[in-house]
Amino acid sequence: GSFGLVRTHVNVDPAKLKSLRQRWSVKPSEMSKKTLNPIRAIVDGMKLTPNPEKPMIALSIGDPTVFGNLPTDDTVLQAMKEAIDSHKYNGYAPSVGYQKSREVVADFYSCPEAPLDGKDVILTSGCSQAIELAISVLCNPGDNILVPRPGFSLYKTLAVSMGIQVKHYNLLPEKSWEIDLQHLESLIDDKTACLIVNNPSNPCGSVFSREHLHKILSVASRNCIPILADEIYGDMVFPGCDFQPLAPLSSDVPILSCGGLAKRWLVPGWRMGWILIHDRNDIFGTAIREGLVKLSQRILGPCTVVQGALESILNDTPPEFYQGTISFLKSNSEICYSELSTVPGLNPVMPSGAMYIMVGIEMEHFPDFQNDVEFTERLVTEQSVFCLPATAFEYPNFFRIVVTVPEEMMIEACIRIREFCARHYRPRSQDSHELDQ
Amino acid sequence: GSFGLVRTHVNVDPAKLKSLRQRWSVKPSEMSKKTLNPIRAIVDGMKLTPNPEKPMIALSIGDPTVFGNLPTDDTVLQAMKEAIDSHKYNGYAPSVGYQKSREVVADFYSCPEAPLDGKDVILTSGCSQAIELAISVLCNPGDNILVPRPGFSLYKTLAVSMGIQVKHYNLLPEKSWEIDLQHLESLIDDKTACLIVNNPSNPCGSVFSREHLHKILSVASRNCIPILADEIYGDMVFPGCDFQPLAPLSSDVPILSCGGLAKRWLVPGWRMGWILIHDRNDIFGTAIREGLVKLSQRILGPCTVVQGALESILNDTPPEFYQGTISFLKSNSEICYSELSTVPGLNPVMPSGAMYIMVGIEMEHFPDFQNDVEFTERLVTEQSVFCLPATAFEYPNFFRIVVTVPEEMMIEACIRIREFCARHYRPRSQDSHELDQ
Repeated sequence: GSFGLVRTHVNVDPAKLKSLRQRWSVKPSEMSKKTLNPIRAIVDGMKLTPNPEKPMIALSIGDPTVFGNLPTDDTVLQAMKEAIDSHKYNGYAPSVGYQKSREVVADFYSCPEAPLDGKDVILTSGCSQAIELAISVLCNPGDNILVPRPGFSLYKTLAVSMGIQVKHYNLLPEKSWEIDLQHLESLIDDKTACLIVNNPSNPCGSVFSREHLHKILSVASRNCIPILADEIYGDMVFPGCDFQPLAPLSSDVPILSCGGLAKRWLVPGWRMGWILIHDRNDIFGTAIREGLVKLSQRILGPCTVVQGALESILNDTPPEFYQGTISFLKSNSEICYSELSTVPGLNPVMPSGAMYIMVGIEMEHFPDFQNDVEFTERLVTEQSVFCLPATAFEYPNFFRIVVTVPEEMMIEACIRIREFCARHYRPRSQDSHELDQ
Repeated sequence: GSFGLVRTHVNVDPAKLKSLRQRWSVKPSEMSKKTLNPIRAIVDGMKLTPNPEKPMIALSIGDPTVFGNLPTDDTVLQAMKEAIDSHKYNGYAPSVGYQKSREVVADFYSCPEAPLDGKDVILTSGCSQAIELAISVLCNPGDNILVPRPGFSLYKTLAVSMGIQVKHYNLLPEKSWEIDLQHLESLIDDKTACLIVNNPSNPCGSVFSREHLHKILSVASRNCIPILADEIYGDMVFPGCDFQPLAPLSSDVPILSCGGLAKRWLVPGWRMGWILIHDRNDIFGTAIREGLVKLSQRILGPCTVVQGALESILNDTPPEFYQGTISFLKSNSEICYSELSTVPGLNPVMPSGAMYIMVGIEMEHFPDFQNDVEFTERLVTEQSVFCLPATAFEYPNFFRIVVTVPEEMMIEACIRIREFCARHYRPRSQDSHELDQ
């Protein structure tokens, strides 16, 4: 390895050399240091040692594929294999995606109140990149964005890494996690670049009513704030509920709606996401569109094979597949909710969609634990059940349960959570057991 | 759309509202405006109207798949279909890739002088994201990076968008595009965060000798500058040449080697890239590794299906496939070189690898054109042959030819280029035809 290091002579001004580093000092950039994932920070700090006598049940990961009970549809796999066999999808696509694939997504989501065509769709490497591009194009360092609390941690991770300030608006558990609109509006100032609305919600599993969405749009319209609508759980709502995308309700607020195949088609690893550009009043204009195109050229979009399969995935997947997933999620949610709502000290909030339940912990009744992190840590130690403490979503004293696990695992997990709570629950002196319902 | 916009009343301090925007003004971020792709800027500014009497021959796009004459190997396609059928690769992988897939890449590139294991590999969404992550982790705004001229434009696109200054070091066409080491070293100052070495080279098709690589390492070592080695064309060198990866030659300089499936396996659209972390002297240490992991969590890595197929792609693709591609590229390069080297006014530089030839234009003999952009523009108008002007690589008075086209197209293109040059060539008064060789 040292050959050449000594022999090479290059004329360099010795005075100049003085100013150079004379020893190695390679440090990670400020941006990489500012890219913080709170879930990792919290989970990595927990002592997660399961009880060796009980098999581990992980209710922590928002990945519907891990237990094998929710496979994607055969149509989806077949579409991929046909895309491979066609030999048509090996080369570079345009950085925003094949025109045909963009049109397929546009047609799938277009509606009379919010028409879309191919040029309104940017294909991305998963919904994560969709959110990254949307924040990147709308915000400068020093701006602020409004994000839900509790909410998905990626918004903050991305914003903070770009020097964008995060302001959290409250969701109200007692109103099925609707937005506290007064609080939301009080946060707006002249540096507010974007409002992020996540519906259906991770981690809440809540689905906003049409009326509530109108009120949110009203705040955005009055204050001239564009919206990033994270609708990755769109259409994953329980029978009787109705998912209403945000864009068709607005005629003026410009909206970047982010979505993808990950959740509804149960293939999060495939990294196929998109941005739908809704701008019927020409407020984004060409400038934001061009900005998105430019930003997409940094890493050149999603895997072309998945792009090639999109047409068949979106158009040929049978309705029974979607219905099957949703009824499973609803059934598991109902089991979990009804089991846990009779556990003294816990207050689950029944979801209407997505794949999560948030459960409130009456910490005053669990003096053994300081907070939700300690509570969920010990739940692993004693019962081998792992739920994410909602501190990971900026919402202490709750935990989040993922309801994609097989039913018998869901039931077993609830039994163990009940046992755990019974062991640690301490009624306050003035409480009586009759108060527990 | 207007329902709710009027009815909703929220209490907001009117004094506060004064400070808010009273009308819409959504502008693209500074970063998106600074994300400039010079190839797009130049090509979009050209009048590319082919001669309707001649079918278009595009020698401009670095995509080996466009003409269908260079299909990937069946092993590669079969590996993808098996990954799909296994149902194992639908969920989320870790953001740096499956451990198994990282190990497969490590094993493929490990050698005794530069051993690698799984933890030294970060899987990325194409080599573009590998380069983006490597620059992002090493550089802060205000730093500078050293990039080759002529060179691949993405380095500058990414750096400028992050507020990093780009300093171009010269490659020397008369020395088969070796680096002007004295010029390189003269550019280094105390804000130099990274040296980018691209070998084999896009756009030059050059391959550095072992001795030259030692000299480059010597400059980096003496000045304590880490290297980003863009080795995406690694092993794509002609028989008789030898590709030498940079890392095994160095025992001290820390190196991030970027590569991927795109070129050698002829599937650029699949977006499977990687960073190999070489740090035998522990100069990057854990900090740079952790920085890369954090940055990878922004968009969560490449498509899991391709990750699942990696083991078979790397280990089972027959040597004949690689050899077939390389002999084709060499043969086409020789045809193109020998044809164009007898064209008065042109000076092609014979490549040793990759899939490009750079051709110098003696502009003084082509008074009809101001520069390489006008020259290549008119070549489209008259002859329907499109080559990228090397101004797109910061190197005026050259153009780049992609040699992946079918042989008969290569020959036809050379005939047309000869005809074009013959029409526009003007010998200077003191010149005689004997001087043309």
